[in-house]
Amino acid sequence: MFEQLALIGCGLMGGSFALALKRAGLVRRVVGYSQSSATTERARALGVIDAAAPSAPLAVTGADLVLLAVPVAATENTLKSIREQLKPDMLVMDVGSTKRDVVDAARRALKQDVGLFVPCHPVAGREVAGVEYADADLYNGKHLIITPIERTLAPKIEQADALWRALGCNVARLSPEQHDAAFAAVSHLPHLIAFALMNSIAAQPEGAAFLSLAGPGFRDFSRIAASTPQVWRDVLVANREEVANQMRHFQQALAELQARIDAGQTDELERLINRASRARANWRSSPASK
Amino acid sequence: MFEQLALIGCGLMGGSFALALKRAGLVRRVVGYSQSSATTERARALGVIDAAAPSAPLAVTGADLVLLAVPVAATENTLKSIREQLKPDMLVMDVGSTKRDVVDAARRALKQDVGLFVPCHPVAGREVAGVEYADADLYNGKHLIITPIERTLAPKIEQADALWRALGCNVARLSPEQHDAAFAAVSHLPHLIAFALMNSIAAQPEGAAFLSLAGPGFRDFSRIAASTPQVWRDVLVANREEVANQMRHFQQALAELQARIDAGQTDELERLINRASRARANWRSSPASK
Repeated sequence: MFEQLALIGCGLMGGSFALALKRAGLVRRVVGYSQSSATTERARALGVIDAAAPSAPLAVTGADLVLLAVPVAATENTLKSIREQLKPDMLVMDVGSTKRDVVDAARRALKQDVGLFVPCHPVAGREVAGVEYADADLYNGKHLIITPIERTLAPKIEQADALWRALGCNVARLSPEQHDAAFAAVSHLPHLIAFALMNSIAAQPEGAAFLSLAGPGFRDFSRIAASTPQVWRDVLVANREEVANQMRHFQQALAELQARIDAGQTDELERLINRASRARANWRSSPASK
Repeated sequence: MFEQLALIGCGLMGGSFALALKRAGLVRRVVGYSQSSATTERARALGVIDAAAPSAPLAVTGADLVLLAVPVAATENTLKSIREQLKPDMLVMDVGSTKRDVVDAARRALKQDVGLFVPCHPVAGREVAGVEYADADLYNGKHLIITPIERTLAPKIEQADALWRALGCNVARLSPEQHDAAFAAVSHLPHLIAFALMNSIAAQPEGAAFLSLAGPGFRDFSRIAASTPQVWRDVLVANREEVANQMRHFQQALAELQARIDAGQTDELERLINRASRARANWRSSPASK
């Protein structure tokens, strides 16, 4: 049980964490801060936070749990702004989708206090943004990746691990490098592709007519294109080397399919599609997809 | 009310049509044929069809409604095989995802009887195949595109239109060319991309580890990769020019995003992602996405 959560960034991710923690009876009081005071006020009106702080350091004062839920490029400045308020009994976490840049930012901002910070990535999200969509169930049943560095304090890692498990997460630990390589493949590149596809269609004169005919396959494929621009701008820039690496693999696989189509090699084409279909069907039946 | 549906191809699409028609009380009897007698037998055992025919022409004998639910490249031979059984009071339809190749096949196969054939594309599907997944609700609330040619008989078009509406479809009419251009953008290219992404990840030594971490964004984006290989082999080959055209648009939009990432032009990148995000959010709130 935590006495006070300082929630820095009262959007979908942060708001959902606050609601989940409250529902689980794991926090007595939530003090929130957002860059926009309108957002903080909305979070308070919705009961996601109990009190609105006028600044990040004031939100942290008196807290024993701090959650950063801001675009990853804002990590360093946010941590710098609260550093003076940090105390040894505090647990500090983030929810960013990249981890190498976040741990580098934490090292620079927190210096000898970096051990309090447990880098976290909950593999969850929605195609809508804003505290009005905050959902106590967002993290339930989802993966949560912890990417500790050597200086991360072991008791803090254990505390974070137990906390996310209490919210229903499957907790895994990876190095920041392993994390960023994996999520370039299964999340960052898919987002980039979905953004490109939407822009590609929208830029065509017949784009609106095309979209008016689209069905459930398109709905699911393109859902992630509606993700928050500020969040994904930061993710794609922060992890650009790994994303570029995955892009090369993807373009190669695409060219292989394209060559079979162009040559009318239907048997070879079917074999390639079959490989993809089996890979996806196998994944679907794994516990990860539930 | 139809007396007898001849269902040629007792898979997910055909089986779902038979179940929907039965539930709506629009057919008295369903006679099915599939290339594999095991499939036909399973359809009968499941009650999707009432009787199994040993050949396509025998299924059509005595029918007043014929549905082809086979991979599009099989259209011509299937229509040729049943041509002798066709009668002026019959309505013949297909459910293929491409339409130019289907109407060309129908012209060649049916000659002066081509007016009986109403080319149809229900914009529905699932990431599983087989009659065991047949679902009376598959088409309910989905788009249904009719792509008549000049020789398609007007009363047959009206009959098809009314039939699909009775199953809950939003019926639209397009030329085969308009249809294939639109679905290259919103369906065929997305499938090709999803196949390529799965193959790209699966081919990497760490692929299985990457996939074990994937979350709901990946689940939805990649769902269509599990589609039936035989169906999609035919679609991608049949519509290759329009798919190649959409591929050029997509690669251009991707290169534009990539250039901003490489240059670290975060404002420009955010602007491009914002365009995609708004386009997707606007689509989501349209009736088509329901």
